Amino acid sequence: MSKTYSVAILGATGAVGTELLALLEERKFPLGKLSVLASERSAGKEIEFAGDRLRIESVNASSFDDVDIVLASAGGSTSKEWLPIAAKAGAVCIDNSSAFRMQSHVPLIVPEVNPEAAIAHQGIIANPNCTTILLAVAIYPLHQVQPIKRIVAATYQSASGAGARAMEEVKIQSAAILKGETPQPEVLPYPLAFNLFPHNSPMTANSYCEEEMKMVNETRKIFGDSNIQITATCVRVPVLRAHSEAVNLEFHQPFDVHKAREILSTAVGVKLVEDFDKNYFPMPIDASGQDDVLVGRLRQDISHPNGLELWLCGDQIRKGAALNAVQIAELLIAKSLI
Amino acid sequence: MSKTYSVAILGATGAVGTELLALLEERKFPLGKLSVLASERSAGKEIEFAGDRLRIESVNASSFDDVDIVLASAGGSTSKEWLPIAAKAGAVCIDNSSAFRMQSHVPLIVPEVNPEAAIAHQGIIANPNCTTILLAVAIYPLHQVQPIKRIVAATYQSASGAGARAMEEVKIQSAAILKGETPQPEVLPYPLAFNLFPHNSPMTANSYCEEEMKMVNETRKIFGDSNIQITATCVRVPVLRAHSEAVNLEFHQPFDVHKAREILSTAVGVKLVEDFDKNYFPMPIDASGQDDVLVGRLRQDISHPNGLELWLCGDQIRKGAALNAVQIAELLIAKSLI
Repeated sequence: MSKTYSVAILGATGAVGTELLALLEERKFPLGKLSVLASERSAGKEIEFAGDRLRIESVNASSFDDVDIVLASAGGSTSKEWLPIAAKAGAVCIDNSSAFRMQSHVPLIVPEVNPEAAIAHQGIIANPNCTTILLAVAIYPLHQVQPIKRIVAATYQSASGAGARAMEEVKIQSAAILKGETPQPEVLPYPLAFNLFPHNSPMTANSYCEEEMKMVNETRKIFGDSNIQITATCVRVPVLRAHSEAVNLEFHQPFDVHKAREILSTAVGVKLVEDFDKNYFPMPIDASGQDDVLVGRLRQDISHPNGLELWLCGDQIRKGAALNAVQIAELLIAKSLI
Repeated sequence: MSKTYSVAILGATGAVGTELLALLEERKFPLGKLSVLASERSAGKEIEFAGDRLRIESVNASSFDDVDIVLASAGGSTSKEWLPIAAKAGAVCIDNSSAFRMQSHVPLIVPEVNPEAAIAHQGIIANPNCTTILLAVAIYPLHQVQPIKRIVAATYQSASGAGARAMEEVKIQSAAILKGETPQPEVLPYPLAFNLFPHNSPMTANSYCEEEMKMVNETRKIFGDSNIQITATCVRVPVLRAHSEAVNLEFHQPFDVHKAREILSTAVGVKLVEDFDKNYFPMPIDASGQDDVLVGRLRQDISHPNGLELWLCGDQIRKGAALNAVQIAELLIAKSLI
């Protein structure tokens, strides 16, 4: 009989939690006991898993006894409160929040990029932000061949990035606008249906929002390259699921686009989607539910001799969050780091 | 009695044609006779103007007799066929299509940028592409103070850029998706409701689409600066009206962001929309129906010492097309170039 692992999911009812459960089943994760934990508010509710019904327990100090792996997606403050306790109890925690990402002793991992960073874990491993994961998967294969000097990114982020309630709000708003009404936003700060706005994460002192600074700082940490220069403009768009990014890459020397295409056509976690004749490239509806990051529109940048342009779409609930976390867990098992 | 001008609108029934009529009325254009011309198909229909009903005439060789100004928005092939005839008959034609834009003897004008280029007209003046106009209005005030070296732009273009039928298609698709159906696109090549895709204009040899190359070539021509380096990624988004652009500007030397803000706060045709505390910046719903290009999120680029980031939204039917054309006509009158 092969080894199984006791898993606790902290925050099982949200968009990412739901996807975590689906992925554990779909990927035939070597699951022993599975516990689903949530706040007092959700405790007692039941959720479905692999044909069974699981009762949600409220998290407490003994929730992590005999748990091997915690997959946390309940927000930063919940992670800060409970993951140190879980780690102390002997579990390895994979955290979807931003709470621990930039702490120097916490590995920040995209399995296709820096799996070896997992070795140094001290009980908590951070899952990067969605836009960062998608970007990292798409461009790291190029960075390995020739280091990237500078990235200029613009994102097109779907409503699901703000959670299941934001997705619902966009649908409700859309229906209301189609009836000629003027709906008031409740979850998001401004109307998103048939509209868009710069990402509503808090503004930092340099006038970049936190979402943008995550792309900057997390990419550097994951790549282990503090010299890479990054600027980003993050924007929410009325797409239900899957984020897109327009990415301008500058290298230290020219990077031939045919070589880049060849590299990305075999890169793990990347699917090249390009039909120039049909003007068919990655789209959110095609990326939704996919494990791979769809990459296309590779072009030699006509504005800079060392530039390349690319376009990507990825399911930010899946590879941008839940899948990456499950892959980290699989990595820990494969490398006997647990 | 003040002087009036006989105006013919070629292509009066489309999204831009409708806006042209509204603007002539709204701006109290010194209008003499107004004729509305269209293809055989639309001839005989009636449209409303200033409380009257105008009968659409099919365009023919004598349509331009005694016409002072032709405002054309009926597509490139119609413009190519009829504008040389109209110009020969003595009219000054302001063309919204791309047919003549890059011809060296045809001025390409954004009145806030290069009004003096109108002097050399030979009967045809081209109105630039929508994304180019919005970009030019927003960044020229900075370029005047310190020349821009390179632009990296990513666009968020609304359905109306593909015409009134595309706007309608997005609404119909949205309603169908909300009912759980899977609608097939007819006007646009791919579903746009709750989705987005790289701009569907024809691909050129360098893998940039025509829309992107318009931004590159037209901006250079309007600025009279062939050295300015430009790259763009153009994307259609499920917004009904008004385009947005994330613009990264590189100058030859550092450009202080406070100085840039001061310049843009008084620039003609620009409205600075920035509330960093409320995370409130330009949005398509706020730009719709506005004459000004809304600019915000001015930031010192953290990835380049000479860089600035900015975000803009503009009504591409209005300033991006119809309004710019009417402003060119007003400019011709003001400078006695007609």
